[in-house]
Amino acid sequence: MAIGAWILIALMSIWCVESKYMVYNTTSKIVPGKLNVHLVAHSHDDVGWLKTVDQYYVGSNNSIQGACVQNVLDSIVPALLADKNRKFIYVEQAFFQRWWRDQSETVQETVKQLINSGQLELINGGMCMHDEATSHYIDMIDQTTLGHRFIKQEFNLTPRIGWQIDPFGHSAVQAYLLSAEVGFDSLFFARIDYQDRAKRKDEKSLEVVWRGSKSLGSSAQIFAGAFPENYEPPSNFYYEVNDDSPIVQDNMELFDYNVPERVNEFVAAALSQANITRTNHVMWTMGTDFKYQYAHTWFRQMDKFIHYVNQDGRVNALYSTPSIYTDAKYATNEAWPLKTDDYFPYADRINAYWTGYFTSRPGLKGYVRTMSSYYLAARQLEFFKGRSKVRPNTDYLADALALAQHHDGLTGTSKQHVANDYAKRLSIGYEEAKKVVETSLASITSSSSKTDSGSPVTKFQQCLLLNISYCPASEVDLSNGKNLVVVVYNPLGWKREDVIRIPVIDENVIVKDSEGKEIESQLLPLPNASLTIRNHYSVAYLGKFPSVTPKYWLAFSASAPPIGLNTYFISKSKRPDTVVAAPSKSHVVYISEEKQNDVIEVGPGDLKLVYSANQGKLIGYINSRTMVKESVGQSYSFYSGSVDKKQASGAYVFRPNHTYSTKSDGQASFTVLRGPLLDEVHQRINSWIYQITRVYKGKEHAEFEFIVGPIPTDDGIGKEVVTQISTHMKTNKTFYTDSSGRDFLERIRDYRKDWKLEVNQPVAGNYYPINLGMYIKDASKELSILVDRSVGGASIKDGHLELMLHRRLLHDDGRGVAEALNETVCILNKCSGLTVVGKYYLRIDPLGEAAKWRRSFGQEIYSPFLLAFTEQEGDGWTNSHVLSFTGMDPSYVLPDNVAMITLQELDDGKVLLRLAHLYEIGEDKDLSVMASVQLKKVFAHRKINKLTEMSLSANQGRAEMEKKRLVWKAEGFPGEAPQVMRGGPVDPATLVVELAPMEIRTFVIDFD
Amino acid sequence: MAIGAWILIALMSIWCVESKYMVYNTTSKIVPGKLNVHLVAHSHDDVGWLKTVDQYYVGSNNSIQGACVQNVLDSIVPALLADKNRKFIYVEQAFFQRWWRDQSETVQETVKQLINSGQLELINGGMCMHDEATSHYIDMIDQTTLGHRFIKQEFNLTPRIGWQIDPFGHSAVQAYLLSAEVGFDSLFFARIDYQDRAKRKDEKSLEVVWRGSKSLGSSAQIFAGAFPENYEPPSNFYYEVNDDSPIVQDNMELFDYNVPERVNEFVAAALSQANITRTNHVMWTMGTDFKYQYAHTWFRQMDKFIHYVNQDGRVNALYSTPSIYTDAKYATNEAWPLKTDDYFPYADRINAYWTGYFTSRPGLKGYVRTMSSYYLAARQLEFFKGRSKVRPNTDYLADALALAQHHDGLTGTSKQHVANDYAKRLSIGYEEAKKVVETSLASITSSSSKTDSGSPVTKFQQCLLLNISYCPASEVDLSNGKNLVVVVYNPLGWKREDVIRIPVIDENVIVKDSEGKEIESQLLPLPNASLTIRNHYSVAYLGKFPSVTPKYWLAFSASAPPIGLNTYFISKSKRPDTVVAAPSKSHVVYISEEKQNDVIEVGPGDLKLVYSANQGKLIGYINSRTMVKESVGQSYSFYSGSVDKKQASGAYVFRPNHTYSTKSDGQASFTVLRGPLLDEVHQRINSWIYQITRVYKGKEHAEFEFIVGPIPTDDGIGKEVVTQISTHMKTNKTFYTDSSGRDFLERIRDYRKDWKLEVNQPVAGNYYPINLGMYIKDASKELSILVDRSVGGASIKDGHLELMLHRRLLHDDGRGVAEALNETVCILNKCSGLTVVGKYYLRIDPLGEAAKWRRSFGQEIYSPFLLAFTEQEGDGWTNSHVLSFTGMDPSYVLPDNVAMITLQELDDGKVLLRLAHLYEIGEDKDLSVMASVQLKKVFAHRKINKLTEMSLSANQGRAEMEKKRLVWKAEGFPGEAPQVMRGGPVDPATLVVELAPMEIRTFVIDFD
Repeated sequence: MAIGAWILIALMSIWCVESKYMVYNTTSKIVPGKLNVHLVAHSHDDVGWLKTVDQYYVGSNNSIQGACVQNVLDSIVPALLADKNRKFIYVEQAFFQRWWRDQSETVQETVKQLINSGQLELINGGMCMHDEATSHYIDMIDQTTLGHRFIKQEFNLTPRIGWQIDPFGHSAVQAYLLSAEVGFDSLFFARIDYQDRAKRKDEKSLEVVWRGSKSLGSSAQIFAGAFPENYEPPSNFYYEVNDDSPIVQDNMELFDYNVPERVNEFVAAALSQANITRTNHVMWTMGTDFKYQYAHTWFRQMDKFIHYVNQDGRVNALYSTPSIYTDAKYATNEAWPLKTDDYFPYADRINAYWTGYFTSRPGLKGYVRTMSSYYLAARQLEFFKGRSKVRPNTDYLADALALAQHHDGLTGTSKQHVANDYAKRLSIGYEEAKKVVETSLASITSSSSKTDSGSPVTKFQQCLLLNISYCPASEVDLSNGKNLVVVVYNPLGWKREDVIRIPVIDENVIVKDSEGKEIESQLLPLPNASLTIRNHYSVAYLGKFPSVTPKYWLAFSASAPPIGLNTYFISKSKRPDTVVAAPSKSHVVYISEEKQNDVIEVGPGDLKLVYSANQGKLIGYINSRTMVKESVGQSYSFYSGSVDKKQASGAYVFRPNHTYSTKSDGQASFTVLRGPLLDEVHQRINSWIYQITRVYKGKEHAEFEFIVGPIPTDDGIGKEVVTQISTHMKTNKTFYTDSSGRDFLERIRDYRKDWKLEVNQPVAGNYYPINLGMYIKDASKELSILVDRSVGGASIKDGHLELMLHRRLLHDDGRGVAEALNETVCILNKCSGLTVVGKYYLRIDPLGEAAKWRRSFGQEIYSPFLLAFTEQEGDGWTNSHVLSFTGMDPSYVLPDNVAMITLQELDDGKVLLRLAHLYEIGEDKDLSVMASVQLKKVFAHRKINKLTEMSLSANQGRAEMEKKRLVWKAEGFPGEAPQVMRGGPVDPATLVVELAPMEIRTFVIDFD
Repeated sequence: MAIGAWILIALMSIWCVESKYMVYNTTSKIVPGKLNVHLVAHSHDDVGWLKTVDQYYVGSNNSIQGACVQNVLDSIVPALLADKNRKFIYVEQAFFQRWWRDQSETVQETVKQLINSGQLELINGGMCMHDEATSHYIDMIDQTTLGHRFIKQEFNLTPRIGWQIDPFGHSAVQAYLLSAEVGFDSLFFARIDYQDRAKRKDEKSLEVVWRGSKSLGSSAQIFAGAFPENYEPPSNFYYEVNDDSPIVQDNMELFDYNVPERVNEFVAAALSQANITRTNHVMWTMGTDFKYQYAHTWFRQMDKFIHYVNQDGRVNALYSTPSIYTDAKYATNEAWPLKTDDYFPYADRINAYWTGYFTSRPGLKGYVRTMSSYYLAARQLEFFKGRSKVRPNTDYLADALALAQHHDGLTGTSKQHVANDYAKRLSIGYEEAKKVVETSLASITSSSSKTDSGSPVTKFQQCLLLNISYCPASEVDLSNGKNLVVVVYNPLGWKREDVIRIPVIDENVIVKDSEGKEIESQLLPLPNASLTIRNHYSVAYLGKFPSVTPKYWLAFSASAPPIGLNTYFISKSKRPDTVVAAPSKSHVVYISEEKQNDVIEVGPGDLKLVYSANQGKLIGYINSRTMVKESVGQSYSFYSGSVDKKQASGAYVFRPNHTYSTKSDGQASFTVLRGPLLDEVHQRINSWIYQITRVYKGKEHAEFEFIVGPIPTDDGIGKEVVTQISTHMKTNKTFYTDSSGRDFLERIRDYRKDWKLEVNQPVAGNYYPINLGMYIKDASKELSILVDRSVGGASIKDGHLELMLHRRLLHDDGRGVAEALNETVCILNKCSGLTVVGKYYLRIDPLGEAAKWRRSFGQEIYSPFLLAFTEQEGDGWTNSHVLSFTGMDPSYVLPDNVAMITLQELDDGKVLLRLAHLYEIGEDKDLSVMASVQLKKVFAHRKINKLTEMSLSANQGRAEMEKKRLVWKAEGFPGEAPQVMRGGPVDPATLVVELAPMEIRTFVIDFD
C-alpha cells in the first residue's frame, strides 16, 4: 500500500445502511403483457459417461469428474422447502430410484409433497435420457416404461414433458412414439445441426410442431423446442459452487454492490433470446451437467434475479418448469412451423459431424442388441412360468438394458471403464435372466402328465458365445448313447423355420426331430479365423483356454411354432465312423471344384451369388424365382481418421481424411463350401478382415458374416472400416434408412429438406444411423441391407451403399470423453485391438416387394431362435417331456404385419402386452392395411378378465391420455389434421385388437 | 466392448441385498481404553487473501478462487440439525458477523440453539485469525475483543480455544497474552519450523505447556498443540464437493463397495498419528481453506467413518471439537513438555524461511500502525465527548483495523487488489473516526463558559499525509492577521514534549504558546526528494496536483498534558519580510560550513552523531551526558531476491542470493542542516534512497527517516533493501527482538533453543519480526533500534543490526498468493515502483539503562501527538476557547511504567479500560516493580460506580475466568509453579490498581 493511498477517497456513503435479513419476492407468475423469462432449474445427470452410473451417484472417482448425484438430490429438498415458489425438474430415473431407496420415510414423505405440489417435477421419466440414433425403439419403450411405471406407482403421476436435451441428434421415433405416444405435451432438446439452428433462429422456428410419422401424422405429433444454444444458462448465469459467473451482490453494507449491472445483463440476455423466439415466453435452462450439487447456490441467485428483475420491470422473471412453459406456449394459441422427418445427422460446427458414434463400440452395440432380444424372449418365458416375487427374475437385465440406452452408453461415447460397466451389468442381468429362461423351459417341457414326479428338474444350458463359436453345451462327447437335446424357442408370433448352427466335436452325428425322424443336416469346418478368435477371447474374458476344440459346425433346419418351442435331438450316428463315405443326411462340405472357371455361382436354392474366382470377388446377384438379376460388388475399405487438431475423428465425430483409402491387400484367399442347406464363401480379405458369405437353400437373401480386427494402427493412423455394396442402379442420390429401427426415412445425398446444406464433409455429412436397415431403389428394383446392431450407413455414390462396421482411432475428438476410441482386448497386459464379429444381410427385390422381407426378416434378426441344450441318456426324453409348445392357440398365428413386442408379467401380477403393426402406410400393397389380433387366441390358455389400453409407457389409460393431451396447431394446417388411420376400441366381448399401419398398442391385462 | 466380454463373470451375489435407508451410529463418545480419533470439522476462512473479505463472504470473484463463506455457514445449519452428534467449529467472526446480520430471526434462533448445545462452537473468536509476527499486541487485543464481545452479547458465551492454525509462526504474546489472558484452555496451530516439527514428532512433543512470558510465567501459560503436518485432514480424507478422496461406498447394491478398505486406511492413519502423540487422543482437522461450502458432503462421509470404524473397533472415532479434545487431554493428568519463547522464524522446508513477510508491503504495515494509534486516540476523544449511538463513531475503523490484522492482511501476503481493499477500509474508517475526533476536539475546546452560544462550532482539520509533507491545513496564507490554531493532543498517560514539524508556505511565521508567548521555532527547507514524492503521490492517490507548494517545514517544540491537549498559534511575523536577517526565534537552517573538516559532529544537544564528510558516512555516536561513545556505521544494502525455481524470494519467503550485494553508488550527496531545535543530515544514498537523520536538542536518540524507492528492477532482479548499523560491540551472536511489540526475546544467530539447527539460510534463517524494536548489548552498552511499523530484523554479524525496510520482487514464491510482490503506484497507467517513507530510531545507553528509552519512547512512537488545525481571524480564540485540557486530574500522571492502552466507551455506555505495565521482570532496576494507578485521579471528572476486572478480551469477569481455566502440568514442574507477581484485587473504596511487570489489567467501569 502506497503511502499516498492512506487517504483513498471514501466515496461510500454507507453509514446509514443497516444490513438485515432480506426476503426475496419470488412469487411471480406469468405476466401476459411482458416478456416472461421461465427459469427452469435442472441438472443434467448422465447415466454413465466419464464415470459409471454408480460412481456418479455416490460421487466417487471425482478425479475424473467432480460429480455426485446424491448431492443434487439431497440438496434439492431443503432448497425447495425453503421457498415454495422455487421449482426443480428431475429427469434420470436411474439416479432418482437409487436415491429414493436410500431415503428415510420422512424424506420420502417430504419429497412426495414436493412432487405433488409441483415444486419438484419428474420429467422425461425414463431410466435414462436414451440415445436416439443407436437405441432400438423397443429398448427405448422398455426403458421409458421402467421409469414411468415407477413414477406412477410411487407418486401416481405421469410425466408430461420430453427432455432429450443432450442426445446427439433426434429421431422421428423419439418425436412421435416416445413423446406423443407416451402422452407428452412437448419435447425439448438442444443438439441440432448448426446450419439448421442458424436458420431456425433467423426464422424463429426453433419451436415447431413435429410430425415424426408419415403413417400416424397429426395423431402423433408433438410440440418440440430446440434450445437456442445448448441446455445451459446464458453465459454469466452459472451458479454452481465455485462457478465464476458474477453473483448478485445486493448487500449495500459490503463492497461490489452490483444489482443494476446484473439486472441489465439479465434483461439483455432475455431480450436477445426473445428476438429469436415466437410468443413472449423464453425458457432459460438454469443448469448443466451434474450441477445443483448444492442447490442452494443456484436458488440464492435466482431468488435475487427474480426479485430485482421484476422490481426493474422490463421483463418478468419467474420460477418455471417445462410444463409451465409448455402451457404458456399453448395458451398463446399460436400456430407453429411444421417439422417432419428427423434431426439427423448432427454437426455442432463445420467439419464436425457426430456420425462416428453411429458405429463406435460395435461390440457393445451388438451386445446390447443381443440382450434386448433376450430380454424380450425371457419375459415371455417368465410369463409362461409365472413371475416370481423373489429373484431370479428379469429385473436386473431390464435395468442394465435401460442404463445401456443412455446417450453415452451403447452410443459408444463413454470412457472405456464405463463401457465395461455397462457390459458387466448386462452380463449380470443375463446370468439372472438365463436362470429364469432355463427354469421356464424346464417347466414347460416337463409335462406333469408325462413325467413321474420323482424325476429331477431338467438343467438346461445356453450358448451366448456362439458368435465366437463357443458352446460347451454342444461340444460334448455323444458316445455311449447320449443324446443332446436342443430346445428351440421362437419368440416371434409367427411359425418359423431357420437353419441352426452349433459347434460339435464329432463329425459323425445325426439330427432327429421331435418325432424321432432323422432330418437333413450339414457339417461345415470351423475356419481357422474363427478358432483363433474363440481361443483368444476365451482366455481374455473367461480366463481359460477351451477344454476341447470343435472341428465343425453342425447345421440343420429347425422350425418352431409362434411364441413356442420345438425339440431336436443330436446323437452319434450308428453308421461306421467314416466321414466321407455314405454321408446319408449329414454332409461334410467340400471345397469348390469349379476353380477352373472364373465365374462361380454360389447358393443351393433360388438365390445365386455370382463370383469372379480369379478376382475373389462378388460380381452378381441372381434370384431365379423373382427373376431379379443385378451386377453387385462387395468390398471393404477404410477411412483414415483425421488427426486435424481442430477436429480429429473420435468417439463422437466422424472426420475422415479426404483421401479415401482402400484396403491394403496381401494374403487374400477365396474358398467356397457347398452343402444341401447352405453354401459358404470364405474370403480372407486381408490379415485382419475375414468374411463368410452364406446363401441358404430356403432363403432369398445373402448373409455376410464379418470378422474385423484387430485393426492395425502401427502406421499411427486410426481407421474406420466400411463395407460397400456397389451396383449400377440409378438411385438419384436417394436412399432410405430406418428411424430407431422402425419407420424408414428418405435421405438425399448432400441435401437437407429443412435448409440449403453447405456441404463441408461429403462423406461424414451423409451418414445416418442404421438400426434395422437401409435400402436404395431404381425403376425396377430395391436393394436392401439389414443389420444385426446399430451402425452408421450412407450412400456416397448412386447405386452404392456402405456400412461402417468398426472404428479404431488414436485421437480424442474433443467432445468431453477425453479418450481415443481405441478398444483393445488384453491377455496378461498384452493388448491388441478389439476384433468384431457381426452380420449383415442383403437382398434385392422387385420394386415394391422388398418391405415384406425387411419387416419380417428384420423381426427374425432381432429375435433369433433361443437355443437351450441338455444331455440325455438314451431315448427317455420323448416319453417324459413336452416336445413342442406354443403359448397361443395352436391353430393361431399373428398376422404377418403384426409383432408382439412386449409380453411381460408385471410385479402386480397383471400382464403387459404390446402389439406393433410393422408397416407404414403405403409400404406394402398387401400388408399396409389394418390388422387384427384375436387376443382370445393369443392367450388361449388363460381367461382375460380385464383389458385396459394404455399409453405406450403403460403409465396411464390411453383414453385418459388422449383426453388431456394438448392439441397443437401447425402452420398451414389451420383446421383439423388429415385423416389418420387408427385401430378402433377393443370390444371386451370379442377381444379383437385392430392395428393400423405403424400403430403400436399397449395393454394391461388382468387374467382371472 | 469385446465380443467375448458378453459373459463377464458375474461374481456379485447381490440378489439378496435390498437397499434401504441407512441410519449411522454417530453417538460415540470418548472411550478410555482405546485410541480416540477426534474428528474436528472446521473451515479455514481467510479474512482476505486472494479475494477480499466481502468477495469471500458472498462468493464473488470465483475465477480467482472458488470460495464462498455464505455457503459454509448456510450449509452448516441443516447439516448440524440433521444429526445432533455432529459438531462444527467456526472461527472468523468477521465472516460470522456478516452472516449473522443476514439471517432471519428463525435461523438466528436455530443457530443459538446449536451454539448452546455445543454442536456449533465459536472458537478463537476474534474478527480474524491475526498475524502473530507483524500485528501489534494492542491491535491483537482490540480485534479479539471485538469478536469476543459480540459472542458474549449474542450468545452469552466465551470462546475457550485458541485456533491460530495458519499464521506463519507463533509469538510468545499469542501464547501468554492472547491465549492465557483471554481465558483460553488451549491453543492450536500448524506452522512451526520443519526441523522443529521433525524433532517434536520424534519426541512426541508437538503438544506442550507454553509459557510465553518470563514475567508472568505459569500464571499465563497455555496448553499448546502443533499439528503433525498441517490443518487439513490426513491425505485421502478430503470431502468437499468434487474432492477426489475415496468416499465410503457402503451400498452393497451398487458397485465399488469399499467399507473394509476405507476403514483400514482410517485406522492406519490414526495409528500413525498416535505414534507421534502423547495420550490416546489424536485430533483430525477435518477441513481446510474455505471448505464445507456444502457441509453435508463432509458429514455424510464422517458419519460413515464413525459408524464403520467403531463397528470395526480397533480405534474409536468421534465427532469432537478442540474443546472436547482439550478436556480429554486434560483428563489424562499428563505432564507436558515445557516450551518458552516463541516459534519464530518459520520455515516449511529447506531454504524456505518465511521471514520476507516481516517486511512485505511496508506501506500497508505503516498505514495499519498509524491507524492503530489513531484508533486508540480517537476512542479516548470519543469517550470524552460521549459515544454517539448513531454514526459517525469509531466502529468502522475498529472493524477495518481488525480485518487488517488477518494473517494475510498487514502481513503483506494478499493479492494487490486485496491489499487495496484493506487500505480502502482503513481509509473509510479513518474518515469516520476523524469526524469523531474533530467533533470531540471542538467540544473540548469550546468551553461553554467561555463561548457565547451563538458562535459556530469549530471546524478542525487534520493532516494524515504529513508523511509525504502534505498538509493543506497548515499550507495556508496567514496574511491579514489570520492565525493558524494548532491543537496538540497527547494520547499518552504522561506529560510530554515533542518537536512538531508542519509544512508552511511562508518563511516569515512565528509560533506562540497558549499563553500568547512566542516560542522558539525553526524552519527547514523541504528537500526535493520530499517534494517529488508529495507531488507524485498527490496526483496518483488524490487525483490532483497540490495547489500550493510549501517551501519549509516549520518545527517547534510542543508539550501537552497526559491524555490531554494544548494549543499553539502560528501567525505571520510582524517584522520585515526578510529571511536571514534577524531570525529572532524562528531560524532558517543553514548548510553546514564544516565541509572542510572531514569529521563533523551533528546534534544541538547532548547527543552528537559523528560523520566523515568525505565519505558522507556516519562513523560515531557520542552522548556527552551518559559518556557513551561508540563508533557506529550506518548504511543501506540490498539482497537480490533469488529466482531459484524451487524457491524464489516472494511475499512470504525471504530467499536472498548468497551473493550479498551492496548498493550501487553514483549520485550520492551529503548535507547538514543545523538549528536550535534539531540538526538534520540529508544523504542522497543513490538515485532511489534518500535519508534524513535528525538529532534533537532535547532527545538522546537519532531519528532516521528513509525514502526508499522506486526500487529499480530494470536489471530483472528483485531487491530487498536493508539498513545496517555496524559497531564493534562484542555481542556473541546474541540480540533481542520484541514479541508482537511487547516482551523482548533473546535471539542467538544460527541457533535455536529447541533443537540443533541445521543452517541452510544464514541470512533469512536469522531474521525475526520487529514491531517495537531490537537491541544488542556488550559488557557496557546497549544499542537499541526502535521502529515505526513491523519490519524484519537481524544481527547477521556480531555488533551489527539490520532492518529490512522495503522489498520489490519479480517472482512468486509458490505459497499461494500467485503474484510477485511488486508494488507500484500509477498515474494514467504509467506505473513505477512504490516508494516507502518511514523512520527508525537509534540510541546507545549504558548497559542496563536502555529499557527506559525503549519502553517510554516506544510508546511515543506508537502514539505521536495528534494534531488538529483551524484558522482563526485575529486573536479571539484564546478568549473563547479552552486552550489546555487533561482528562485526568491535572496534578496526576500515570506512573512511568504504565500505559493506558485502551480507554473506550462501549455501546452499552460502560467504559473499557486497559492498563499495561510496560516492563518485564528484571528489565529495569527502577521500573520493573509493582506499579499503582489511582483510578479516581485518572477519572477525575467522573464518579466510578462499579469497577469489574475482566479477562483481557473483556468478555468475562477475571475471577470467573481464573476459576474455570484449566491448570496444566509441565514436565519437570510437578508441583505448583514458581511464584509470579500479579497486582492484587482492587479495593472499591480506594480504586487503586496495582500492576506487576508485564501485567495488563482490563476493567469495565460503570460511571454514575
